[in-house]
Amino acid sequence: MALYLITGASRGLGLELARQLGSLPASEVSKVFATARGDAPILEELAKKSSGRVIVVRLDVTNEASIKQAAVEVEANLDGKGLDILINNAGILQYALGVSTMDNLTESFTTNVLGVHWVTRAFIPLLRKGSLKKVVNISSTIGSIATSRFVHLLPAPAYKITKAALNSLTVQYALDYEKEGFTIFALSPGWLRTDLGGETADLSVEQGGKASLEKIFNTGKEQNGQFIKIEIKGWPNDGRNQYDGSPAPW
Amino acid sequence: MALYLITGASRGLGLELARQLGSLPASEVSKVFATARGDAPILEELAKKSSGRVIVVRLDVTNEASIKQAAVEVEANLDGKGLDILINNAGILQYALGVSTMDNLTESFTTNVLGVHWVTRAFIPLLRKGSLKKVVNISSTIGSIATSRFVHLLPAPAYKITKAALNSLTVQYALDYEKEGFTIFALSPGWLRTDLGGETADLSVEQGGKASLEKIFNTGKEQNGQFIKIEIKGWPNDGRNQYDGSPAPW
Ligand SMILES: NC(=O)c1ccc[n+]([C@@H]2O[C@H](COP(=O)([O-])OP(=O)(O)OC[C@H]3O[C@@H](n4cnc5c(N)ncnc54)[C@H](OP(=O)(O)O)[C@@H]3O)[C@@H](O)[C@H]2O)c1
Ligand SMILES: NC(=O)c1ccc[n+]([C@@H]2O[C@H](COP(=O)([O-])OP(=O)(O)OC[C@H]3O[C@@H](n4cnc5c(N)ncnc54)[C@H](OP(=O)(O)O)[C@@H]3O)[C@@H](O)[C@H]2O)c1
Repeated sequence: MALYLITGASRGLGLELARQLGSLPASEVSKVFATARGDAPILEELAKKSSGRVIVVRLDVTNEASIKQAAVEVEANLDGKGLDILINNAGILQYALGVSTMDNLTESFTTNVLGVHWVTRAFIPLLRKGSLKKVVNISSTIGSIATSRFVHLLPAPAYKITKAALNSLTVQYALDYEKEGFTIFALSPGWLRTDLGGETADLSVEQGGKASLEKIFNTGKEQNGQFIKIEIKGWPNDGRNQYDGSPAPW
Repeated sequence: MALYLITGASRGLGLELARQLGSLPASEVSKVFATARGDAPILEELAKKSSGRVIVVRLDVTNEASIKQAAVEVEANLDGKGLDILINNAGILQYALGVSTMDNLTESFTTNVLGVHWVTRAFIPLLRKGSLKKVVNISSTIGSIATSRFVHLLPAPAYKITKAALNSLTVQYALDYEKEGFTIFALSPGWLRTDLGGETADLSVEQGGKASLEKIFNTGKEQNGQFIKIEIKGWPNDGRNQYDGSPAPW
C-alpha cells in the first residue's frame, strides 16, 4: 500500500529500485513516482507496462523550481493521500587527479547535497501525510571520512567530500524531524555495476537494489540519523565489512 | 624562523593568532602574513607596531582571483624563501531555524569549504619550499557528525554541514600531500568569545588562540589527516571531552 518517490530513476540504481518496487504486489507498493530530469526511455517503457503503478515525473534535483513543480504534480496524483517513502538517489561522481586540481566541487555539491536538501523540503508536506514518513538518502561509504585512506586511490575528491556533507545533512534532517515520527537515514547501496560504479564493481544493480530495498523496508525509528550499509550474506570481509548491514563510520 | 599565513585575520581568532605569533621572538616566528578581505583597522595597527613582522595582505577566500593575487604578493615578500605554516581560519556561521528553512548552505559552503580549497592550492607551491609544510584548517566539533545530537539546539545547519565537508576536504589534502612531507589537519579551537562564538562562550579568544598555537606548534606527521581538539588543563568533562587535546570524532 505504500507510496514511493525516487529521484534519478532514468538509469542505474534508481531505475532498478523503480523496477523492483513496481513488481511487488499492490498490497505492498501501491505507486512509485519515478522521477527523471530528462528523457528516460527505459523508465517510460517500464511505466507503460506497469498498469499505472510506476508514474514518471520530470524532476531535476539541481533546479528548485522543477522540484516544486514535481511536488505539485505528485500531489495531484495522490488523491489526498500522503507519500510514504522518499528515496533521494540521484547523484553524480566526478573525477579529479589530485584534490588540488579539483574544479567540480560546486557542481557535485549542487547535485549531491543541495539537490537532496531541496527535494526533501519540497516533499516533507506530503511525507507528513503519509504513514511511514521515511526518507532514504543514497550515500556511499566512499564518503566516510574515517575510512578515507582505504579509498584514497579513487580520484574523486568532490564525490567523497559531498557524500560526507550529505551524511551531515541527513543527520540534521533526522534530528529535526524525529519528533514528528520521521525516519531519515543515509544508505550505502554497495559498489554496483552501473554507469557510475563501472563494470568491475562488486555487485550487479539487481543485487544492490534488492539489498537496498531490504534495508528500506526493515528499518524503523531506531535507524533514524544512521548511516547504514547493505547486507550481502556470505560476502568476504575486506577489512571494512562493506556488506554486513551494520552502520558505516562517519 | 617560521613563516606563517593566516586567513580572516581582521578580527576574532585570526587576529588573535596574528597578535600572539607576532609577539613571539623572531627566532621562532619570522613573519606573519595576516590576510583580510576588507578594511581591518585593528590588524593594521598591530602590523604598524610589529617592526615588519606582521604583514597585512588583502585576501577574500571566496574570490579565487584575489587569492592568486595575494599569493603573488606574499611570494614577492619572501625573498625566495618558502612559507612554513598556512592557517585557514576564515569562516562564517549562518543560522536557520530548522534545516528545511536553510537557504544559506551555498554561501557557507563557498566560504568554509571552497575558500579553504582555493587558498590551500594557491599556497601549496610556497609551502613546498618551506621547511614545516603544515596546513591547519580551523574546523569545529560542531561539525562532528557523530556528536550532532549534542549540538542539535544550535540552529546553524549550514555551519555543521560545511564544517563536516571541510573535515573531509582536509583529509583529502592530507592523503594527497603526505608523501611530500606535508602535515595537514583540522583543528577545533574551542568555543571562544568572538563575534562568531558570542559572549557566553567557554573561553576567551586569548585562551583559544594560545591553546590553538600549542597544537599548531606541537604537531607533526603523526597528526596528518587528523581532527584535533585544543587542550585546556583542568577543564571539566562535559561528556564530550571538548578540551582534552585528543582527536575529535568525525
Ligand atoms: N554505483 C555504485 O557503485 C554506487 C555506490 C555507492 C553509492 N552510489 C549512489 O547511488 C546513487 C545512484 O548511482 P548510480 O550508480 O545509479 O549512478 P548512475 O548510473 O550514474 O545514475 C545516476 C542517476 O542520477 C540521475 N541524476 C544525475 N543528476 C541528476 C539531476 N540533476 N537531477 C535528476 N537526476 C539526476 C541520472 O539521471 P540522467 O540519466 O538524466 O543523467 C541517473 O538517473 C548515487 O547517489 C550514487 O552516489 C552508487
Ligand atoms: N568562535 C568560536 O567559538 C569558534 C569555535 C569553533 C571554530 N571556530 C572557527 O574559527 C574561525 C574563526 O572564527 P571567529 O570566531 O574568529 O569568527 P569571527 O570573529 O566572526 O571572525 C571571522 C573572520 O573570518 C573572516 N572572513 C569571513 N569571510 C571571509 C572571506 N570571504 N574572506 C576572508 N575572510 C573572511 C572575517 O573577516 P571580516 O572581518 O572581513 O568579516 C573575520 O576575520 C572560523 O573558521 C570558525 O568557524 C570558531
